[in-house]
Amino acid sequence: MSSLPIGVFDSGIGGLTVLRALRQAMPGERFVYLGDTARLPYGTKTAGTVARYALQAGGELVRRGIKCLVVACNTASSAALPALREAYAPLPVLGVIDPGAVAAVQASRTGRIGVLATEATVRSGAYERAILALRPDAQVTSVPATLFVALAEEGWIDGDVATLTARRYLAELATAAGAFDTLVLGCTHFPPFVPLLRELLPPGCVIVDSAATTAMAVRQLFAAEGLPAAPAPRLLATDGLERFARVGSRFLGATLDPGDIERVDLA
Amino acid sequence: MSSLPIGVFDSGIGGLTVLRALRQAMPGERFVYLGDTARLPYGTKTAGTVARYALQAGGELVRRGIKCLVVACNTASSAALPALREAYAPLPVLGVIDPGAVAAVQASRTGRIGVLATEATVRSGAYERAILALRPDAQVTSVPATLFVALAEEGWIDGDVATLTARRYLAELATAAGAFDTLVLGCTHFPPFVPLLRELLPPGCVIVDSAATTAMAVRQLFAAEGLPAAPAPRLLATDGLERFARVGSRFLGATLDPGDIERVDLA
Repeated sequence: MSSLPIGVFDSGIGGLTVLRALRQAMPGERFVYLGDTARLPYGTKTAGTVARYALQAGGELVRRGIKCLVVACNTASSAALPALREAYAPLPVLGVIDPGAVAAVQASRTGRIGVLATEATVRSGAYERAILALRPDAQVTSVPATLFVALAEEGWIDGDVATLTARRYLAELATAAGAFDTLVLGCTHFPPFVPLLRELLPPGCVIVDSAATTAMAVRQLFAAEGLPAAPAPRLLATDGLERFARVGSRFLGATLDPGDIERVDLA
Repeated sequence: MSSLPIGVFDSGIGGLTVLRALRQAMPGERFVYLGDTARLPYGTKTAGTVARYALQAGGELVRRGIKCLVVACNTASSAALPALREAYAPLPVLGVIDPGAVAAVQASRTGRIGVLATEATVRSGAYERAILALRPDAQVTSVPATLFVALAEEGWIDGDVATLTARRYLAELATAAGAFDTLVLGCTHFPPFVPLLRELLPPGCVIVDSAATTAMAVRQLFAAEGLPAAPAPRLLATDGLERFARVGSRFLGATLDPGDIERVDLA
């Protein structure tokens, strides 16, 4: 059991930011990553459809043998975590929203927290619930930042279009929330925008994403030290291996080759 | 047979621009429209996956009874037209690329034609082939305008972000093509950007989209005059009826209600 890999699942390539943090935190663990690129994005789809897709993806990874499932997609975490836990019990299933909420509450002094996420994650209210469970007097305001997904996929993470788009979302947040001292990136596609957002946010505003805290949560389950470095993660995608490699390299922070990625069919 | 509706299929809501042109051209015909919103967008996916999705969507419409299938999606037209024709022969199956090529060749004086389309349509080379078949000395240059899909879905069809994005794509076209006198909108998501593009293009440059010419091509098959006005089209979607109604109204040019849309499952 302990030699099985940890399964990581995302709608596409955004979850590679979580895989990167997991590998940094646990260099001795093996990983298998599945991106459902044939059906991405999830963030504009309904909770029922996202849950169905997540169960198919989770099932594929479980069949291959994993010791833990990490849902590295905020939309799928908000829509499918209970269903995945029920389907694959007693397999540990971790999402990215609770770890993101922990990071936000730790970072915020004032309790005024802004969230940028996909339309589906905002609609679910999952971040509000998770943050309020930890800090009942927090004031959480969420705004959908749908275009960030397409911009990140295109690699337009700085420059004029990205800057204007970011300004627009931050202005919507400021209008709805007033001052906030912590900004949660509630989508695994958004970490590439951190340098740009830092320029636009007031000094002192903390940006949190859930990659690092998710990695810490998983690490607590498998706290083995001194293991030899594991081989590179196994990468699966449901479509577009060339695109996965090209765009995914940015998210993983390492060069990917389409030949390293296996195509799987979930339908 | 003649009383059967005409089936119209798109990855999502962009094809409603074609449905709109079809209804204007043939107010007496009945229509059934299917948007595969659970798996959109198609434009960043591979030809094999798009063809598989298109066959499932076409099959759903054929089972319901149609007298003609209009593939109101450039990406699906470029990837799946032969497969659809083979699967449903002798049903007439029309795509939007040949009619778009006809419109472009009719509009262009110089034969220098620019195409903005999805990544998948550009990769297929379908517009180049269709235009060169009509005018072998034409010079066709295609640029993927991926972000237009997300911008159109968000309704950001004017304003600073859309303007900068359009400028960037037109600059890429100008760099690759030099002067062109005709711009083909090779994606049914792009017609909402026509007013913006007109402002940015040099005077005299003609913008063509395939909605009107596709409608004319279908009309030639069913040239009945003086029919009483048909009831409103039947609308099917594979996910997100609320979003389909909200965003789709802009594309259809008529207000849609989520209660008017039926959810279907293709998987």
